[in-house]
Amino acid sequence: MAAIVDRSYTRFMGRTSDAREKILSAARSLIELRGYSALGVAEICKTAGVPKGSFYYFFESKESLALAVIDEHWAGQKRTWTRILNSDEEPLRRLFRLFEETEAAQRAGQQSCGTVSGCLFGNLTLEMSNQTEAIRTRLQEIFDAQVEMVEAVIAEALERKEVTATDTRQAAQALVAQLEGQVLFAKLYNNTHRLNLLWVNCLALLGARAPHEAVAGA
Amino acid sequence: MAAIVDRSYTRFMGRTSDAREKILSAARSLIELRGYSALGVAEICKTAGVPKGSFYYFFESKESLALAVIDEHWAGQKRTWTRILNSDEEPLRRLFRLFEETEAAQRAGQQSCGTVSGCLFGNLTLEMSNQTEAIRTRLQEIFDAQVEMVEAVIAEALERKEVTATDTRQAAQALVAQLEGQVLFAKLYNNTHRLNLLWVNCLALLGARAPHEAVAGA
Repeated sequence: MAAIVDRSYTRFMGRTSDAREKILSAARSLIELRGYSALGVAEICKTAGVPKGSFYYFFESKESLALAVIDEHWAGQKRTWTRILNSDEEPLRRLFRLFEETEAAQRAGQQSCGTVSGCLFGNLTLEMSNQTEAIRTRLQEIFDAQVEMVEAVIAEALERKEVTATDTRQAAQALVAQLEGQVLFAKLYNNTHRLNLLWVNCLALLGARAPHEAVAGA
Repeated sequence: MAAIVDRSYTRFMGRTSDAREKILSAARSLIELRGYSALGVAEICKTAGVPKGSFYYFFESKESLALAVIDEHWAGQKRTWTRILNSDEEPLRRLFRLFEETEAAQRAGQQSCGTVSGCLFGNLTLEMSNQTEAIRTRLQEIFDAQVEMVEAVIAEALERKEVTATDTRQAAQALVAQLEGQVLFAKLYNNTHRLNLLWVNCLALLGARAPHEAVAGA
C-alpha cells in the first residue's frame, strides 16, 4: 500500500526530493521573515509552489518541519565554523575570521531581503524554546556545539599564553553570548556595523591582545 | 456621541480602567509565554475575563496593544534601572547591582511560571522588529535609553580610573549585548545560573578590577 502511495505520489510531484527541498527552503525564508508562529502550512506550500496535500507526505507536523529547517541550517553553518575554527591559522585569528564571516553573512542577508534577519537559532530560541521541548533540545545541542568549538580554540590560545582567561568554558559562553547579543542589535537597528565590535569585545573577554596579523586584516 | 458611547460602555464594563489593565496584563503574560504572533484578540479577552467587544474600545489594533505592553514594561524597568544606576554607590557596584537584579527578576519569573521567560524586549526584537516599524522604533528607543544609562555609569568609573575602556558608548553597547545574550541562554537552558557570568564578563569588557565591596557582596 505504501509503495502504491509512493509511486502515485512520485508521478504526481515529479521528483519528490525537489518538493521536500522546496518546502524546506520556503519555510526557512518565511521563518527568517516572520518567525515560526505566524507561519501556516498552506502559505509554506504556496510559497514553495507545491500542492498543499504534499506537506504531510514529507513532514509529520509544522514542528518536524521546523526541526528539519534548523538541522539543515546548522549543517551548513557547522561546515563554515569547522572550516574557520579548525584551520591552520593562529587561534585568535580564527576567532577574528569567525566574526568577520558572521558579519559578512548578515550583510549578505540584508542585501538580499532588505533587512538584517539575525541568527535563525537565536530567533527561534526567543520565540519557541518555551513552547516546544523538541525545538528547545535541538537548539541547546547546537549552542552546546558552538560553545565547544569556540572553547577548543580558546584552549589553544591559552596554551600559547595569548589569553589570560583561564576558565575556557565560561569564556566561550561569553563569546557566543556576545555574538548573539550583537546580532540581536544588528537586527533591531537593521545595521551590521555593530558586529565590528565583536572582535574588540572578544579580546577584552579573553584578556588578550590583538595578534599583529589579525589587526592588520581588520 | 463619544460621550454617549463612553457612558454606555462604562455601564457595560464597570470601571473601564480595570478592563484595560486586565487586557494589558493578560497580553503581557501571553506574550511572555508564547510570543506576539501566536496571540489572538479573542484569547487575550478570554484570559483577561473581559468581553471580546471591549478590546477595540481600548486598543486600535493588536499592534497598539503590543506597544502599550512594551511601554508599561519599560516604565517599570526604567524605574528599577534608574534607582540602581543613579544611586550613591560606587559606579561599578551599581553595575553589579543591575546584573544581580536582572538575575533575581528572571529567577522570580521562573518560579512563578516554571520557565525563564527572558527579556520581553529581546524576545520582541527577534520576533517582531522586522515586521512592524512601530515596534522596531519603540524597541530601539528603549535599548538606546538602556545604553545611555549604562554609559553614564561607565563614564563615572572612567573618571575615577576604575576602568580602562575609553570608548564608553561601545563599552555600554557591549554590556547590554552581553546581558541580552546571556538572558537568551538563561531562557534556552531554563537556568538562571548563566547570569552569574554577567559580572565577571562586565569587568573584562570594561578592563576593570572588581571593587572590593562588590566582590564581597557577590
